[in-house]
Amino acid sequence: MEIAELGEFGLIKHLTKDIAPCQESTQKGIGDDCAVIGTGTEERTLITTDLLMEGVHFDLTYMPLRHLGYKAVMVNLSDVYAMNGTPRQITVSLAISKRFKVEDIEELYAGMRLACEQHKVDIVGGDTTSSLTGLAISITAIGTAKAEDIAYRSGAKETDLICVSGNLGAAYMGLQTLEREKAVYNQQVKEAIEHANRTGSNANEAIAQIPQPDFAGKEYILERQMKPEARKDIVERLRQAGVKITSMIDISDGLSSELMHICEQSNCGCRIYEERIPLDYQTAVAAEEFNLNVSTCALNGGEDYELLFTVPLTANELVSAIEDIKVIGYITKPELGKALISRDGNEFELKAQGWNHMTEEEE
Amino acid sequence: MEIAELGEFGLIKHLTKDIAPCQESTQKGIGDDCAVIGTGTEERTLITTDLLMEGVHFDLTYMPLRHLGYKAVMVNLSDVYAMNGTPRQITVSLAISKRFKVEDIEELYAGMRLACEQHKVDIVGGDTTSSLTGLAISITAIGTAKAEDIAYRSGAKETDLICVSGNLGAAYMGLQTLEREKAVYNQQVKEAIEHANRTGSNANEAIAQIPQPDFAGKEYILERQMKPEARKDIVERLRQAGVKITSMIDISDGLSSELMHICEQSNCGCRIYEERIPLDYQTAVAAEEFNLNVSTCALNGGEDYELLFTVPLTANELVSAIEDIKVIGYITKPELGKALISRDGNEFELKAQGWNHMTEEEE
Repeated sequence: MEIAELGEFGLIKHLTKDIAPCQESTQKGIGDDCAVIGTGTEERTLITTDLLMEGVHFDLTYMPLRHLGYKAVMVNLSDVYAMNGTPRQITVSLAISKRFKVEDIEELYAGMRLACEQHKVDIVGGDTTSSLTGLAISITAIGTAKAEDIAYRSGAKETDLICVSGNLGAAYMGLQTLEREKAVYNQQVKEAIEHANRTGSNANEAIAQIPQPDFAGKEYILERQMKPEARKDIVERLRQAGVKITSMIDISDGLSSELMHICEQSNCGCRIYEERIPLDYQTAVAAEEFNLNVSTCALNGGEDYELLFTVPLTANELVSAIEDIKVIGYITKPELGKALISRDGNEFELKAQGWNHMTEEEE
Repeated sequence: MEIAELGEFGLIKHLTKDIAPCQESTQKGIGDDCAVIGTGTEERTLITTDLLMEGVHFDLTYMPLRHLGYKAVMVNLSDVYAMNGTPRQITVSLAISKRFKVEDIEELYAGMRLACEQHKVDIVGGDTTSSLTGLAISITAIGTAKAEDIAYRSGAKETDLICVSGNLGAAYMGLQTLEREKAVYNQQVKEAIEHANRTGSNANEAIAQIPQPDFAGKEYILERQMKPEARKDIVERLRQAGVKITSMIDISDGLSSELMHICEQSNCGCRIYEERIPLDYQTAVAAEEFNLNVSTCALNGGEDYELLFTVPLTANELVSAIEDIKVIGYITKPELGKALISRDGNEFELKAQGWNHMTEEEE
């Protein structure tokens, strides 16, 4: 059977479907942002891990190694915050091909260390090895949370409010912009070489004179793609406000996909409103340029690393008073399905295209 | 600067040299088999991680996926036992290229789950993604140990006895045997195709008739390479016998390299005796076939996953009574250096060639 028939989530489900934990300390295994491990006190250990492969998760033609290191750490810290936990340590494994110099890996590490410093996280171990092909980065983050504070995907209840932090779709539009400029540049290089071959002029000189792309007015969406921030601040503000989070997940694959995870694991439905989905101006402008529906980008574009969470209806005033949090809908009975109400009042069923699927479709 | 100039250990040292932990719970960071994290009780969390890349760490032309899965888990569990800890959970991240089918990944997972069942370890999470090139496997193991029981690399003291479990060099000779048979097979395929081209006969039929290699009398060294076992039994026997382990490491890169880690981190010297290094008969026979010095294979061949540890001199009788443990020498003052006493009584300085270096030299 082809793996594509099952998809990533399907494959994991298939492989792990009959795994029953045998260790008493395993309190939550596969199926949330982190695994939860008991320690004998009220504190729990949270574990999450990510494997990033060159050419699949990052493109070094436009992603500086320092940014890549920063992002690789952030996406793991984001998973710990998404459990309402505090990240404490990470391990870093790298597989490095021969084309990298020591200075390159220093850059990568500098980005990782910056992310760690900002979140007071220690690098406590890892593995460094060679690779016959591209760069591979595997990071595991270790965090802590009090048992009673942990926000699972499975805790959403009927009438709970659905909230998101920040705004959505920006990282996806940043990626589209970078990919377009890469294609434009490659075309210019090709033409410069062809011209040089015809005229006998110097191709390298012509290539050196290709102007840098103009990213004015796109700074924000590029930063969202290249330097995402794990939303520690949101988790802290919710704690300070005394808001009980009933369920939470971070948005790495797109709002639709993540909301469906919450609904499936909480056995509930949902109703969200297109007009309430938070968008940045630059995201909207870029979507228009690319002739894409901006709401589709926000729903299915990935890598936002914002938090999607639910709170009791009674917390409405409290969350509405917190900066950078938006209520986008509410949780319903499971039989009411997963509904998106469009700007013109029509009801659609939410679909989880996810980020990979979307990219594939457009290629 | 080329990474090869620094080497793996040099690169890690270089990148992490000024990392100072900021979390109180970080009790041991980089530089041992596991990181050690405090939990607020006398129990500590142990974390270790490994990244295995196709073509670098494994060759699927002779390594069945089930064995690979088993081995990938074992090498991580071995690191937890090497801290005198108990492994409890693992996370598994896979990057899979398109040539793999669901059934292949089932095989890989079956091996992983077998290893987990044998050691009562839970798979609690991970990441599954695609790869443009080969297979990548990243496993993180989480274990526990009482603070007072943990065996660091840094605890060896003058006059301590140096012990190893099992026997050494077998996995390396298994690898050499597999590599040789692969080369023989490739040559036969090449000849079959040339013959078919000359005579107009069917190459596929001729290739199908190439006999399987005869591995009789090599079963043990092949198993040591393809199905290593983490030495839980050794750690348990030492505990039952009431032996205090002063330092410990698992032998993944070769006895020399690991013993040098202990000496450097414990700030001591050592004196080991060639005649006392435990060897299996099949290892010796294979070394002779390959015209290699069997002691060199035991000292520098990797992937044994045996335990190297030190115990107080007073534990001599206790450890000597334990099956499958051999005392090979003792710890000295640092100024006496790291000495290997050969069978004929000559003294050599121990050198850490390690496994990678050795392979490269011979290619």
